[in-house]
Amino acid sequence: MTDTIQARLTALGIELPQAATPVANYVPYMITGDLVYISGQVTVWDGKMHYTGKVGSDLSVEDGQQAARTCALNLLAQLKAACGGNLDRVESAVRLTGYVNCLSDFTDHAVVMNGASDLMVDIMGEKGKHTRAAVGCSSLPLDSAVEVDGIFKLA
Amino acid sequence: MTDTIQARLTALGIELPQAATPVANYVPYMITGDLVYISGQVTVWDGKMHYTGKVGSDLSVEDGQQAARTCALNLLAQLKAACGGNLDRVESAVRLTGYVNCLSDFTDHAVVMNGASDLMVDIMGEKGKHTRAAVGCSSLPLDSAVEVDGIFKLA
Amino acid sequence: MTDTIQARLTALGIELPQAATPVANYVPYMITGDLVYISGQVTVWDGKMHYTGKVGSDLSVEDGQQAARTCALNLLAQLKAACGGNLDRVESAVRLTGYVNCLSDFTDHAVVMNGASDLMVDIMGEKGKHTRAAVGCSSLPLDSAVEVDGIFKLA
Repeated sequence: MTDTIQARLTALGIELPQAATPVANYVPYMITGDLVYISGQVTVWDGKMHYTGKVGSDLSVEDGQQAARTCALNLLAQLKAACGGNLDRVESAVRLTGYVNCLSDFTDHAVVMNGASDLMVDIMGEKGKHTRAAVGCSSLPLDSAVEVDGIFKLA
Repeated sequence: MTDTIQARLTALGIELPQAATPVANYVPYMITGDLVYISGQVTVWDGKMHYTGKVGSDLSVEDGQQAARTCALNLLAQLKAACGGNLDRVESAVRLTGYVNCLSDFTDHAVVMNGASDLMVDIMGEKGKHTRAAVGCSSLPLDSAVEVDGIFKLA
Repeated sequence: MTDTIQARLTALGIELPQAATPVANYVPYMITGDLVYISGQVTVWDGKMHYTGKVGSDLSVEDGQQAARTCALNLLAQLKAACGGNLDRVESAVRLTGYVNCLSDFTDHAVVMNGASDLMVDIMGEKGKHTRAAVGCSSLPLDSAVEVDGIFKLA
């Protein structure tokens, strides 16, 4: 039983951030039945915003992928909290919706969102595969370059 | 049993609008298992659009919050209809997605969306807490300042 | 038992496209419990993009409706694959989210999205009715005029 999600995180040298607590009347995650709904995550890290601005103009597509990866790490931090610290209680990812902050002529939303999708599979293997939508937004909260929300299934 | 949702509505002096019926091939709500999916609600009130235009330019952030609150009241009207008139059949809010009509330099989407989140908790207490995403849209149907869709859980 | 979904497709002369396989770390559909989540579908047809650009400026609203219909046909192709080829295993549509690629002064998102909603009901009858949200995006992947994702319920 060494091939756990925690073991993969360690092998990849990835430390999840602290799961942030919203300072408003909503919650970061909610379990209903065997599904975990997770609120939209932006590019905050250690309490500061990283990767702000428009992907494709202020930021390169590669930076956009790192922004999407940061959102995905924040999703996993919330998911871990929802699982009481044990990510191996997750059966699979189900849905990610990725919002890319960009100008009206941007077309590489899917490439940007791969930064989140690849992280999920790097860490969770086949369990990390998910359905997704990727769309463009003319603006996002706190000027985040990307926002991603998610639904996961518990075992 | 005085602390019902209907009692809170009365105490707060809030009268829910009539649940509007779509005039197209979709439905305002659908129950599947113990979840109620509710279609995206805009800032219509008594059959007329209120709070149209871009939040942060045509409208202040405070007006944007009122717009989000209006969408939330319309969500609750649909939820009440889904519950056969008895909101106390609701176990909890699960997910709100808030779309804010704004320009590309807007960053206060979360503040705007608090207008919807606060209403949920004002009316439903702890049951009103939910996961959410808030994003920016360059335009919305009928120039609505905000649109919010939702998922709720029945007891 | 002639009034099956496949019979309607035949009667309407509609041939579903091949269900496309994503070339990234996500999947086109996922079944969890009795729900089928389907990834966001764009206006690809036979491997080529149709209906690209902004609805209301590059494209007419009528073309936008055809774009939404194309996305809906792609959703049904994925749904059919999820059902092992038998669409009559579907109990109902549950949720469609429609993203319309348009400029900031566009207001006819609902009219555009009717292209997808009408198709669902044409093909699935009452089972095709769904909740939905329709919003405006300043850009979409591959410059698709519309993107639609969906959730369906199996019998």
